[in-house]
Amino acid sequence: MLLRRLPILAWLPNYNFRSGLADLIAGVTVGLTVIPQAIAYAGVAGLPPQYGLYSSFMACFVYTALGSVKDSAVGPTAIAAILTRENLHGLGPEFAVLLAFLSGCVELLMGLLQLGFLIDFISGPVSVGFTSAAAIIIATTQIKDILGLSFPGGKFLQVWAGLYEHIGETRLWDATLGLGCLLLLLLLRKVKDIKVGVSEKGGGGRGRAALAQALWFLSTTRNILVVLVCAGLAYYFDTKNQTPFVLTGEVRAGLPRLALPPLSATVGNHTYTFTEMTSTLGSAIFVVPLLSILENIALAKVFSEGKYVDATQEMIALGVCNMAASLVDSMPVSGALSRGAVNHASGVATPAGGLYTGALVLLALQYFTPYFYYIPKASLAAVIIAAVVFMMELHVFKPIWRTKKVDIIPAVVTFAACLLLRLELGIVVGIAVNLLFLLYASARPAVRVTSALSSDGVPHVVASVDRALAFPSAEFVRRAVRKAADRDARAPLVLDASHVQAADFTAARGIKALIEDFHARGQTIIFYNVKPSIAEVFRGVRPREFLHCSCRAELDRLLLEAQRQDKQARA
Amino acid sequence: MLLRRLPILAWLPNYNFRSGLADLIAGVTVGLTVIPQAIAYAGVAGLPPQYGLYSSFMACFVYTALGSVKDSAVGPTAIAAILTRENLHGLGPEFAVLLAFLSGCVELLMGLLQLGFLIDFISGPVSVGFTSAAAIIIATTQIKDILGLSFPGGKFLQVWAGLYEHIGETRLWDATLGLGCLLLLLLLRKVKDIKVGVSEKGGGGRGRAALAQALWFLSTTRNILVVLVCAGLAYYFDTKNQTPFVLTGEVRAGLPRLALPPLSATVGNHTYTFTEMTSTLGSAIFVVPLLSILENIALAKVFSEGKYVDATQEMIALGVCNMAASLVDSMPVSGALSRGAVNHASGVATPAGGLYTGALVLLALQYFTPYFYYIPKASLAAVIIAAVVFMMELHVFKPIWRTKKVDIIPAVVTFAACLLLRLELGIVVGIAVNLLFLLYASARPAVRVTSALSSDGVPHVVASVDRALAFPSAEFVRRAVRKAADRDARAPLVLDASHVQAADFTAARGIKALIEDFHARGQTIIFYNVKPSIAEVFRGVRPREFLHCSCRAELDRLLLEAQRQDKQARA
Repeated sequence: MLLRRLPILAWLPNYNFRSGLADLIAGVTVGLTVIPQAIAYAGVAGLPPQYGLYSSFMACFVYTALGSVKDSAVGPTAIAAILTRENLHGLGPEFAVLLAFLSGCVELLMGLLQLGFLIDFISGPVSVGFTSAAAIIIATTQIKDILGLSFPGGKFLQVWAGLYEHIGETRLWDATLGLGCLLLLLLLRKVKDIKVGVSEKGGGGRGRAALAQALWFLSTTRNILVVLVCAGLAYYFDTKNQTPFVLTGEVRAGLPRLALPPLSATVGNHTYTFTEMTSTLGSAIFVVPLLSILENIALAKVFSEGKYVDATQEMIALGVCNMAASLVDSMPVSGALSRGAVNHASGVATPAGGLYTGALVLLALQYFTPYFYYIPKASLAAVIIAAVVFMMELHVFKPIWRTKKVDIIPAVVTFAACLLLRLELGIVVGIAVNLLFLLYASARPAVRVTSALSSDGVPHVVASVDRALAFPSAEFVRRAVRKAADRDARAPLVLDASHVQAADFTAARGIKALIEDFHARGQTIIFYNVKPSIAEVFRGVRPREFLHCSCRAELDRLLLEAQRQDKQARA
Repeated sequence: MLLRRLPILAWLPNYNFRSGLADLIAGVTVGLTVIPQAIAYAGVAGLPPQYGLYSSFMACFVYTALGSVKDSAVGPTAIAAILTRENLHGLGPEFAVLLAFLSGCVELLMGLLQLGFLIDFISGPVSVGFTSAAAIIIATTQIKDILGLSFPGGKFLQVWAGLYEHIGETRLWDATLGLGCLLLLLLLRKVKDIKVGVSEKGGGGRGRAALAQALWFLSTTRNILVVLVCAGLAYYFDTKNQTPFVLTGEVRAGLPRLALPPLSATVGNHTYTFTEMTSTLGSAIFVVPLLSILENIALAKVFSEGKYVDATQEMIALGVCNMAASLVDSMPVSGALSRGAVNHASGVATPAGGLYTGALVLLALQYFTPYFYYIPKASLAAVIIAAVVFMMELHVFKPIWRTKKVDIIPAVVTFAACLLLRLELGIVVGIAVNLLFLLYASARPAVRVTSALSSDGVPHVVASVDRALAFPSAEFVRRAVRKAADRDARAPLVLDASHVQAADFTAARGIKALIEDFHARGQTIIFYNVKPSIAEVFRGVRPREFLHCSCRAELDRLLLEAQRQDKQARA
């Protein structure tokens, strides 16, 4: 139990120099990825840049102790950032920090109460629709920066309307830099796939292996490289007293203060109480944790290589990460698939890699912030767009179409609702629509009706119901069976319940009414192959008579008897 | 089609003197019941008494033409009245009339769009919980009147707090009259069951038959009799210049004006626009129609005697009834089970009975309103309490307990939520809780695991899934099957899908991942008895390999092959 809840106890005793070196290399590589991402995601969330860095160390430390997936690299993510932006309503960092704390509480609670099954209700199509819409919205928020434009409004439609209006004010230098960076990032991403002439025989010499290694490193650290080069360029122009690019500007130096999460906040003249803050954040308190867990568990599954993923432990770890991070002014954090991939490819050995990532971020906060001043906003926008462009999972629509065409509907509804309403409202709408499919199926089971002859030659009608009988289907099945009985009003009806796996009170009352119906018509109804537990449920409502059998021979006998009684009654 | 949508065309051509007489007797009897009820229910709805009468004629006329159930007697009901009260927020009759109109629109729309299946989602337990809570709330609103008390506040807890506070101010005369009336009404209700010595041989003479008839009439018209006697008493005291009872007071004489439903309303200094009125009424616009339809269809089923009930036609009829009634200042109307029973017992022949009921109400409005002045409020309260006391379906809890104990939960949750929150919110909470049961069942199907030997002696593990595979269960089933495979990592696993009736994209992706899992472990997974349509869904995601068979012999062959391959791999 302790091993499950404190995974560090499992790997720490066997920790050695080799693992340490692997973790150091991987941790630093992830750190070089996370620093530019963190500054950029703070912008996505509508927060000052240092908040991105504040979010990128504490969670790493905590995850080292509690995390069960070595490849996970916890920190700010695109989805969490855009959800934060949409729920801050421009009200400042205190709200983001409180959101991190409350998300952590919800995640921890979900872990402790074993509520992980809730994420099962986010289906594949809904998840695809949501992620694609989120990617588009995030990219949209960055297009302003790429073009060097500046106008108010952050919503999808607002931004496009603004772009249309202000496109003439595009700053040429920013646009050139932004698009150049974007192109470069996409190219560098491909660089690691270049085959540097490693021959079929596995040979090729040390030189080639080193080149392959170098290309991989170039590709993996492309974000920071591009950002550094751009910052250098901006610095160069600055020494010449030129400022062709819009720059990030002042990043507050030094570590954040350690403090309890803010339980009240003053914005302008108004002091928000805890209750007001919570109601401002609204449903985000549940949506952010749900999506963070979804992303974290998806990541865990990708890198588990067929091993068991302890979802409960991941929820607890993520919860404590967020709660601890909120003590150092963090916005909501989660494992990100992109950084997880970097970590994995860098050969991380244990979750201890996070220690080095966190340390690097602390160093950056302490010593490097003056240099961040020169990072052009357009280059950060390029970093983000190059990341989210691969969140657009349009290719998934094809297999959805091939497997179950109606599943396109929840995907498209989620996508549209996320774009046109707010993101977290959109996913709720998508889930609701998808649940309607499920409920409709359980409300309208298939009732197959066939005419048959018993081995004694007694004609009868067989109606078989294909799934559980519950309140939404009770009345429907009653109607369907009665209609089936109309086929031949003199023949007994056999209700085949072989596929009925459950029943409730409303269904039992429906069955009672059905028996009454048949009695009123003077027709016999025989229940066939009802599971004992369900027969018990049916008998609970005290039906007039409950003719029931579970084998062919018994059924034949009952049918013969029914025919005899019918003849007697008519005679 | 025309016959289905205008049921009057079916019975009018065969209408004769005999049917006419039967309808006259039944219609007048129902009228004598509905007049005191209407005045009382107007009080329940928080409206002036004449609005009850306004609600009791137009709908009767319309239902004669459109209704398909001869026993239904449309008019104000206890449930519709209490829901109206809770959603008026004391804002006056315009809101009630608009609610009637909008409810009518929703009902008509539900009929035209075939949305009748929505009421299937109100399960037996939820319906019991709601009706019982509504009965208690209605009775609560009347206890003030019975005791002659007067204090503000109409909510359940408010009223009981007020009663506790003001109980010392109880008016002795009102309390005596009210409790006396209540006792008398409950006794008179039983009177019709008295056996007046009709002998076994069916004899007993004309006298006895007439006596039985008289007792039945006494019992059936008990409401108006009690109210009339009390009004007479009050009039008598009035002539002596004494007013021991709180009286109904002025009932506006004359017919209501004929006008379009109010699209704006002025209350105090504020003029509510249509949008404001609609948002004030809120969810009532959907809850009132849903419960009206529920009551109407329940009534139709009770009196259908095993015949087919055209739910669509009933929704259309109810919708037009409400829309037409709203033109004459009506509150929402529906068929009431109690009046339906009177109608049925009075031997109504066709829906034309409503014509006489409506005519009687019009006469009452035109000529009798001065006499209604003298009706003591306590007697009306007694009429209501004597009616709603039988809506408390506590006896249903016993069969629920016998059939499916967990079904008690939605019943109790609905009951408590209706009492403590608002009524229409309570039923929504109840439905949601009940749906959670359904969703949990579909998220967590039973996976039965057994070890088996093929006819060739190949040991294997069989996992059978008991219901449809959909997004909430996809991950769960994947985990369960993998766990089952751990039983014997060398034996092939057979996934028996005989009971799986449907699958979606998310489930297909789960199956694909499962096949990958097994491939990574070097274990064989064979799908058995997958329905062709579902196999198609699984194949849509292009799994690595999809071993599938539908008969024993083929399965045996595949198992033997798997064993051979396994031995080869290990050799």
